[in-house]
Amino acid sequence: MISASVTDFGQLTTARGNCGTIGDTVTNCGMVPDSVQLRQPVNFLVVQTSPETSMSPEFQQRAAELIDAGRLLYSMGMVPATSGNFSARLKDNTLAITVSGRHKGHLTPADIMLADATGRSLDGNRPSAETLLHVQIYHRFPEACCILHPHSVNATLLSLLADADIELRDYEILKAFPGIDTHECKITVPVFANDQDISRLATVVATRMADTNEVFHGYLIRGHGFYTWGNSVKDALRHVEAFEFLFDCEMRRKGVSHE
Amino acid sequence: MISASVTDFGQLTTARGNCGTIGDTVTNCGMVPDSVQLRQPVNFLVVQTSPETSMSPEFQQRAAELIDAGRLLYSMGMVPATSGNFSARLKDNTLAITVSGRHKGHLTPADIMLADATGRSLDGNRPSAETLLHVQIYHRFPEACCILHPHSVNATLLSLLADADIELRDYEILKAFPGIDTHECKITVPVFANDQDISRLATVVATRMADTNEVFHGYLIRGHGFYTWGNSVKDALRHVEAFEFLFDCEMRRKGVSHE
Amino acid sequence: MISASVTDFGQLTTARGNCGTIGDTVTNCGMVPDSVQLRQPVNFLVVQTSPETSMSPEFQQRAAELIDAGRLLYSMGMVPATSGNFSARLKDNTLAITVSGRHKGHLTPADIMLADATGRSLDGNRPSAETLLHVQIYHRFPEACCILHPHSVNATLLSLLADADIELRDYEILKAFPGIDTHECKITVPVFANDQDISRLATVVATRMADTNEVFHGYLIRGHGFYTWGNSVKDALRHVEAFEFLFDCEMRRKGVSHE
Amino acid sequence: MISASVTDFGQLTTARGNCGTIGDTVTNCGMVPDSVQLRQPVNFLVVQTSPETSMSPEFQQRAAELIDAGRLLYSMGMVPATSGNFSARLKDNTLAITVSGRHKGHLTPADIMLADATGRSLDGNRPSAETLLHVQIYHRFPEACCILHPHSVNATLLSLLADADIELRDYEILKAFPGIDTHECKITVPVFANDQDISRLATVVATRMADTNEVFHGYLIRGHGFYTWGNSVKDALRHVEAFEFLFDCEMRRKGVSHE
Repeated sequence: MISASVTDFGQLTTARGNCGTIGDTVTNCGMVPDSVQLRQPVNFLVVQTSPETSMSPEFQQRAAELIDAGRLLYSMGMVPATSGNFSARLKDNTLAITVSGRHKGHLTPADIMLADATGRSLDGNRPSAETLLHVQIYHRFPEACCILHPHSVNATLLSLLADADIELRDYEILKAFPGIDTHECKITVPVFANDQDISRLATVVATRMADTNEVFHGYLIRGHGFYTWGNSVKDALRHVEAFEFLFDCEMRRKGVSHE
Repeated sequence: MISASVTDFGQLTTARGNCGTIGDTVTNCGMVPDSVQLRQPVNFLVVQTSPETSMSPEFQQRAAELIDAGRLLYSMGMVPATSGNFSARLKDNTLAITVSGRHKGHLTPADIMLADATGRSLDGNRPSAETLLHVQIYHRFPEACCILHPHSVNATLLSLLADADIELRDYEILKAFPGIDTHECKITVPVFANDQDISRLATVVATRMADTNEVFHGYLIRGHGFYTWGNSVKDALRHVEAFEFLFDCEMRRKGVSHE
Repeated sequence: MISASVTDFGQLTTARGNCGTIGDTVTNCGMVPDSVQLRQPVNFLVVQTSPETSMSPEFQQRAAELIDAGRLLYSMGMVPATSGNFSARLKDNTLAITVSGRHKGHLTPADIMLADATGRSLDGNRPSAETLLHVQIYHRFPEACCILHPHSVNATLLSLLADADIELRDYEILKAFPGIDTHECKITVPVFANDQDISRLATVVATRMADTNEVFHGYLIRGHGFYTWGNSVKDALRHVEAFEFLFDCEMRRKGVSHE
Repeated sequence: MISASVTDFGQLTTARGNCGTIGDTVTNCGMVPDSVQLRQPVNFLVVQTSPETSMSPEFQQRAAELIDAGRLLYSMGMVPATSGNFSARLKDNTLAITVSGRHKGHLTPADIMLADATGRSLDGNRPSAETLLHVQIYHRFPEACCILHPHSVNATLLSLLADADIELRDYEILKAFPGIDTHECKITVPVFANDQDISRLATVVATRMADTNEVFHGYLIRGHGFYTWGNSVKDALRHVEAFEFLFDCEMRRKGVSHE
């Protein structure tokens, strides 16, 4: 790798000449020995090395966690194509959120942007079309610091087959959600009709959640996937894993001819 | 790795002697330290290091993208055995296309060949038996720059169970296709009878697609898999992921006893 | 990596300054070259490097095996969220056991603790809430040196659909269990009702297993997962793989409309 | 890694002392820097570095291919627990075959042994209990150079549900088998009753295959898995992938309520 450098014009240069520009994914271009190569080709991402980004260390840490979360969820088949979106709330109430239209399984720092608490872009990028759903959740749940919206086959099918709210009970894994310490309980997962008018959909969600005595851990949008959140990226991921397990169980029960 | 070199006779030589010839996949043969080794053995591919290939940088870049796409689709179970084939259209209208009979999950640069716009080999290799289907698609869709033909269980089964065209509606993920900005739409996926006479099959496809007012994003061949395309390898992959998600949903719905 | 060191205050320092503290997972912070980076980002865990742990080599070896087992089972989808727990019995009869509430797919040495033969903590950490089930198994099976409790969808569903014990017969893979040398046999897998009172549940299990003439290789808890054990971590993992295969077969048979 | 070496007594020694012996899998033991470590722990396999093995390069190459095949098939869930067995025929008609009872997903060179053409051990190891099935196949198919016996859920279930031979037709992927150039054909996969008397089972298989006009590409044993073969490890793997795809299709069709 020692023969590779990035020029002032953002081009990666090796003995072979220009191999790409910042942001490109490039294959080996004179950076590893020629006579043998790894059977599994390695791709390199050309990165900006100077000047340093002006984003805060907190933003960068959260962005790194969202990038990791995307790779994990993609490996589980939960964010195919460019579906899904993620965000984290920073201490100053701004949001690190995925840029609109990016592939969630291959996120780079350039795919995470900064928005204010109302979802307005603070860095010129365009946030996810569903940003207002994130804003509604952060408003309703003051403790929430991360929102993940995966798009699994199980969630999609379950939401299409459900006439009303989903009720989950008698599963030990329900204890993955905060405040639940026994399988002898029931959690309700609202199912909302899909709507491309996100402002209107956010209002529908807010209305359903107006009763602050009812406990919510996530919700489904019909034919679209689910939203869940937590006090950290790690907590939100735990809730994603628990919901996906539960949705998988519920869907497979529908396919059992003897039940 | 510095102790490894390839002789004029195409043999990889290390301190241990000859370890393989160009094109071989070899295990460690004196190239990494002896007393400890990674538990996950790494295979090396012995490659031709001189003279440089005469293929253009554009060809090499597209070939690298098709190789990556193959590895990804194989990891998803979508190109088992030697099924499937891929191509990319270059700026001069020639095609980078997979050589006939190669395993799409383990492609190397030697498995991607150059053909002209009518599918004739320009480098002595034999292109995929289904090259004429690629030619038909590129002719019909002037913007298309990549075609992927995966061979998933879901696509195979759905095509065998379908009496007619497949209609997909009400899924948010439909927005992964160009020109679609709402789930409240319907896309039609034609299902063609399988035919080993590819020229005849290409004509059947062309006839079905003669109506340029109808929008197509892909099609199924019965018992065989699906074709989809895009303006780049990345776009075509997004369409593969979206179709596979949709075919998975449709197949699972058929297994639900309560619907 | 040579430019990274941990200060007396537990902070990881590189040429870029402080990058994290012990226990943090950090992204690259001046530890690898700047102009190119691997597309798959690598995370580093900042670790305590002195003083050496006081745990015995035997404890450390078993802990490492349990960490590996967790990563493997997580990759198979068998310990989602923070479900599941694992233990190994040491020669002095103490237990290396997972700390309560940790994610079993991302275990580090800090997530494995020491308990005595009755399940009491010997190092100040809080063991899994289900420790008494481990204690009961070690008491009943003097040869057992490892217990694994995964939480798969197949086991969960099968336990919910079963009215009574599960009987498994005619599968070649039954030979994976000790003492079985033919598929022409039957093994019984008890299904216990779930209970958050683990002491009471352990008594129910002990009562069922009082007959020492009956052979047990594992059991299910309704809606909760399964327990199995072996004379080593490797043996216990073999039993997990065999049970999961069998539960998968049994669940899929329930979905077959023509049987 | 430079501080690690293997003593004459087969022990791996670092600055921390003895860390394991040849054949052990060990975690980091002073071999990588202390202040940071990869989040994904890496295991090392302690290997014999001198003297060189007396096995032929041909044996070593085939053994390496079988090891790779095992890792691939395990990642696909096709050799759980210690199920399955593999072999390759060498030019002198001896066999490289898996040692009895080893885990096929974690094979090392020590798990592949040498047997003569009748299945008798040539190196003191005990070959797979099913070695005589390999011997029968090599006798019946003089071109076969590799036999793979995976143990997938699909093959197990299909063999249990089938009353007679399985017939596969109309799938494009049938072309993965030698001599087949159209989907408009039918292949027959015999299903044999399981039998722990392998000599008797081999005779049953040989009797069924006595008609040399009938074409065979593999067979199922009820509740047990399938056998397939090829002229190389690569060919046999292609047949495994094709059969698994076909068995998956056939099993899923049985779960479709509308067919």
